[in-house]
Amino acid sequence: MANNPDATIGVTGLAVMGSNLARNLARHGFRVAVHNRSPQKTRDLIADHGGEGDFVPSESLAEFVGSLSRPRAIIVMVKAGAATDAVIDELVPLLDRDDIVVDCGNAHYMDTRRREQALAVRGLHFVGCGVSGGEEGALHGPSIMPGGSAASYQKLGPILTAIAATVDDVPCCVHVGPDGAGHFVKMVHNGIEYADMQLIAESYDLLRSGLGAGPAELAQTFTEWNEGDLESFLIEITAQVLGHTDGRTGSPFVDVVLDQAEQKGTGRWTVQSALDLGVPITGIAEATFARSLSGHAEQRDAAVSAFGADEPTGWASDGFVDDVRQALYASKVVAYAQGFDQIAAGSAEYDWDIDLGAMATIWRGGCIIRAKFLDRIKEAYADQPALPSLLVAPYFADLVAKCVPSWRRVVAAASTHGVPVPAFASSLSYFDALRRRRLPAALIQGLRDNFGAHTYRRVDAEGAFHTLWARDRSEQSR
Amino acid sequence: MANNPDATIGVTGLAVMGSNLARNLARHGFRVAVHNRSPQKTRDLIADHGGEGDFVPSESLAEFVGSLSRPRAIIVMVKAGAATDAVIDELVPLLDRDDIVVDCGNAHYMDTRRREQALAVRGLHFVGCGVSGGEEGALHGPSIMPGGSAASYQKLGPILTAIAATVDDVPCCVHVGPDGAGHFVKMVHNGIEYADMQLIAESYDLLRSGLGAGPAELAQTFTEWNEGDLESFLIEITAQVLGHTDGRTGSPFVDVVLDQAEQKGTGRWTVQSALDLGVPITGIAEATFARSLSGHAEQRDAAVSAFGADEPTGWASDGFVDDVRQALYASKVVAYAQGFDQIAAGSAEYDWDIDLGAMATIWRGGCIIRAKFLDRIKEAYADQPALPSLLVAPYFADLVAKCVPSWRRVVAAASTHGVPVPAFASSLSYFDALRRRRLPAALIQGLRDNFGAHTYRRVDAEGAFHTLWARDRSEQSR
Repeated sequence: MANNPDATIGVTGLAVMGSNLARNLARHGFRVAVHNRSPQKTRDLIADHGGEGDFVPSESLAEFVGSLSRPRAIIVMVKAGAATDAVIDELVPLLDRDDIVVDCGNAHYMDTRRREQALAVRGLHFVGCGVSGGEEGALHGPSIMPGGSAASYQKLGPILTAIAATVDDVPCCVHVGPDGAGHFVKMVHNGIEYADMQLIAESYDLLRSGLGAGPAELAQTFTEWNEGDLESFLIEITAQVLGHTDGRTGSPFVDVVLDQAEQKGTGRWTVQSALDLGVPITGIAEATFARSLSGHAEQRDAAVSAFGADEPTGWASDGFVDDVRQALYASKVVAYAQGFDQIAAGSAEYDWDIDLGAMATIWRGGCIIRAKFLDRIKEAYADQPALPSLLVAPYFADLVAKCVPSWRRVVAAASTHGVPVPAFASSLSYFDALRRRRLPAALIQGLRDNFGAHTYRRVDAEGAFHTLWARDRSEQSR
Repeated sequence: MANNPDATIGVTGLAVMGSNLARNLARHGFRVAVHNRSPQKTRDLIADHGGEGDFVPSESLAEFVGSLSRPRAIIVMVKAGAATDAVIDELVPLLDRDDIVVDCGNAHYMDTRRREQALAVRGLHFVGCGVSGGEEGALHGPSIMPGGSAASYQKLGPILTAIAATVDDVPCCVHVGPDGAGHFVKMVHNGIEYADMQLIAESYDLLRSGLGAGPAELAQTFTEWNEGDLESFLIEITAQVLGHTDGRTGSPFVDVVLDQAEQKGTGRWTVQSALDLGVPITGIAEATFARSLSGHAEQRDAAVSAFGADEPTGWASDGFVDDVRQALYASKVVAYAQGFDQIAAGSAEYDWDIDLGAMATIWRGGCIIRAKFLDRIKEAYADQPALPSLLVAPYFADLVAKCVPSWRRVVAAASTHGVPVPAFASSLSYFDALRRRRLPAALIQGLRDNFGAHTYRRVDAEGAFHTLWARDRSEQSR
């Protein structure tokens, strides 16, 4: 059976994310071609949700391609890596010049760049497109971060903005930039999400230890925090998770969950990329490593045996809840400042010309890190597009400065009482290093010159210098 | 002019490292073929140092290869990357089956693996060989970390152990393992060196700020520390660098050096690899990022303007010097524990069967991180080869436990007084996380299940579970 070539957009790969995206498209009035490698999934989608809109199901890829109007726009929603390459390889021979392949999976941006170059040679557009918001977001309105050519966005823009989340009537979708820019920004988004969650986890751990409070009580604290500057999706669901009682045991849910965090790789990629770009994203790095550490059960058991788990509780005084709230806020600003620095560095490295304020704008809704806070980031970049760091934007600088005494007290208390705060401590050190007039990096340069003749620069003269350490310690210009 | 094919070993690439290695070999009685792309360097070596031993200079690569006895062993000492590939490409057609090419540069171990595979196809041995100790080490006895085939080490072993540093009559050279094992271990060695130097820099910064002491006074402190458990090359040269007065200005040398640390990439590689291996090497990561941060001059200026560089000094009390010494010791144990974990993980990942105690043994002399401390690491692995973490070896566990109160006071004081201590704070958090009975990773798993249906495991049942958060919050087995 051949379909008319009149579907506006196609989706291949109909697991939950793909079928939810297809349903979202159909619900917005688009005629959506759908396809899945094993046709049962396609049949299920039509059987269960066919009434939601205008679907054009196909059981073969050729039929699927044939059901699309030209230039065709095809969303690929399969596993990142080899599965994506396999689908592309199968699709490409069926496509015509100017057709558009949109990868909405979590691909590494370097893979996306490679794929875009390969398809460009054949006159095809390849678009790496970040989609955040999980299954619910895909269905009801995600945050969408498309990269790829400007030409491809002419066709995709109206479609993607229609299905994206909106905040204040502004859709959470913008053309991020050419090439791998979309997947790059999605990667950093996920990295920030790692840091955000680790900071929340440390806050919970500190409050529980310091106050001797239980999860239900702390759920209430997070609910209150969600009414102020910290208002965000993650704080909201933290209250939900902490407030939940396990049905099986009657214990707090959080106490029956195995305390080994898992990860799918985007945090790791973010840190690896930041190392290449020379951007210190310490918060994301500590969050990523904290997850790995939690999974090393054998080492953890050995350390508990060797050191005992001396964990006093109830050591905090009255103002502690608000101290932690302020420490969380300040550390969160650091995490976002570092993430935005990485986006700026990636944009410069690859000539993507990314509008940083627009990234804050499209993260305000649909995605996991959606937060009131992002309005302020958007405004900061609107006021000063070449902001050297989010931390120094007047709004954030004022707020962070006010948080500093609390932040110091929290890290000092955690260090004193043995509560691990890798992300809190790391962000405070980042802040203190950034604002320090002289860093001991000067000593490091001196050591490097001493053992390896790596040379150093001076504060009072241009050029590179080497001291003859093993001889008369005179200085040579190099 | 053709030479007799009777040189035992060849060195191509006669910049300082290469010519010092060649001189070291000649001084130990080996007949050494030498070659450099531009022959002037070869002539200079012979003119300046020809009397030190038995050199066989060649001006062409063919002549150089022809001057070596078979199987030939050729050390390549050129820049890592394209230059190394270029030399290999030129060499290979001139070689015969079973000849050995030894790359003594700082190559990435994945490049080494690729090269070894390519040469193996042609019946040649390629050996990635880490050499630490800088120019002086190369001449007087470096620490040598050869990888590659066991067969190649039959020829190389006697040569390399002869020129390596020795400690207690034990040469600082051992066959690390097959394949890229040598360059991998050298990479981690350099990563540990980053952490070690950052910890020293933080100690100096804390003492200067806390005591209001000058560099010359602190040089004395480091000299004293070098007589105890911290005895090491880096502590020794720290005293030298801090004690040095700038000839041009009469100021302390460390105050005229630009405080922007540079790096050549091995710290970055170490962290990137650890992320792939799932090993939390937070100390090395913070040290690497601290260097990047120091170089972001524009951001630093903006932060100083926004926040003022409020830097009180003289806030410390009497016991502070010893507190910092103990914090440094404990943090250093963490950095080494993390590095050794990474070597163990790399060894498992690539089937290298690396003897961790042997790595501590060959780092005791010749290299930048040589230290008394490494004897204790060697003993720890001798006692318990499958040690889950260096931290829990009885000797280190006892010492670290004694350091804990000081360590806590130092991180708390730094946080209170605004001195950045990314590596100190990060190692303390690592220690506290490792010994904690329950980590807030459980909350992270709960959040991931809530927003992304990523599932969680339970403490009291096998399997993966998902809570229907948006419905009745019942639990499903997945």
